[in-house]
Amino acid sequence: MKTKDRILLTSLKLFNEQGERNVSTNHIAAYLNISPGNLYYHFRNKNEIVYQLFLQYQAEVQSFMTLPQDGDITYEDKVHYLESILNSMWDYRFLHRDLQHLLQDDATLRDAYRAFSSRTVADGRNILLSMADSGVLLASREQIDALILNIWILVVSWSSFLQSISIQHNEAGTLRKALLKRAIYQIIALEEPFLCDDIKPLLPELKKKYLAGASTDPLTLFPTVLDEVENR
Amino acid sequence: MKTKDRILLTSLKLFNEQGERNVSTNHIAAYLNISPGNLYYHFRNKNEIVYQLFLQYQAEVQSFMTLPQDGDITYEDKVHYLESILNSMWDYRFLHRDLQHLLQDDATLRDAYRAFSSRTVADGRNILLSMADSGVLLASREQIDALILNIWILVVSWSSFLQSISIQHNEAGTLRKALLKRAIYQIIALEEPFLCDDIKPLLPELKKKYLAGASTDPLTLFPTVLDEVENR
Repeated sequence: MKTKDRILLTSLKLFNEQGERNVSTNHIAAYLNISPGNLYYHFRNKNEIVYQLFLQYQAEVQSFMTLPQDGDITYEDKVHYLESILNSMWDYRFLHRDLQHLLQDDATLRDAYRAFSSRTVADGRNILLSMADSGVLLASREQIDALILNIWILVVSWSSFLQSISIQHNEAGTLRKALLKRAIYQIIALEEPFLCDDIKPLLPELKKKYLAGASTDPLTLFPTVLDEVENR
Repeated sequence: MKTKDRILLTSLKLFNEQGERNVSTNHIAAYLNISPGNLYYHFRNKNEIVYQLFLQYQAEVQSFMTLPQDGDITYEDKVHYLESILNSMWDYRFLHRDLQHLLQDDATLRDAYRAFSSRTVADGRNILLSMADSGVLLASREQIDALILNIWILVVSWSSFLQSISIQHNEAGTLRKALLKRAIYQIIALEEPFLCDDIKPLLPELKKKYLAGASTDPLTLFPTVLDEVENR
């Protein structure tokens, strides 16, 4: 692997694990056993590393948003694409952990992130509109506008939400995967009231898949204080 | 006003404006024109100030969650309580801006925040369950479980979401108020599919109130790049 790619991969790992603010370019160089000068040969500063990681993340998300719109996509396919997006968001979760700080720090990233947000919301709405056109989604334009914004906020907030409860103390891969799937379950729940009768019979199986054996009870997501509240 | 209260009020203001990480106890003392020693007489450290502010925030939110459950509450009343909660969340928005950092930094706050989250989600669910019991909300237990989690994530993420788009460049009180109202609009949209026919006629008026003259189009929330995307 080229040094430039190794720097990006290591930065991503350290930013996710420790928070971007707690990781300096010196930390990154030391972790890779290269000199700070070598790192600066590839990246002018930390902002440039963050920006390159954002571009990778953006490319991943956009590749999943541009699904064929010819009507051959099933609801299950759409849900599967959503899962890929959530996985990318988790892989680059440092971006959403303290987004306001990153955006305030770097005008280039700020402009790029805003364009990315608008484009992704617009693309997501187009997917819902095409579902409405083909009769899969029984919702007005107004309802679709509100729905896509609710989906967007859920998706961009999910990894921060998980980290803010207790996931950081239990970083086991299986728990992480189960809780990412839970986001898909929550999005299916957002769409369910609007789905046509042809799709509804598919939902029990899909929901079961994305609950991944967990309880529907949201209080089970707050495990450390569960004993305290379960008998209220 | 007592010095202790002035310290809390000033800390809240500075944390919200500049981010908690960028404000030291020395900054707070200098802003108040008191000595650091005077500040330390009232608070051992910054964590203790954050924790006291959290307790104030918690008390405000819980006062709005414990509405009478005797069926005399109308849907409009419930929406009005929600608005009060959103206002409190905005007033203490530094808490949700980089929550993971605050929780990692202080075990006392961590335990308190988790208990608060679980309790608030449980209380919110009880409100939805009592609406279901009285026939206002036509939803299964499973649907209510998913709905309350979606409402919770929307509410705790809303001020960060606003700040991450462009609100920081346009801190005018009217815009702030309009965008807080938009969160209520989004929550009404979450509940709408489940509301009984008696309530539905109230919704156009309520939605209009909480849209506050704005477009339903979510892309209008990303104003700085609007030109770029509106003709897509």
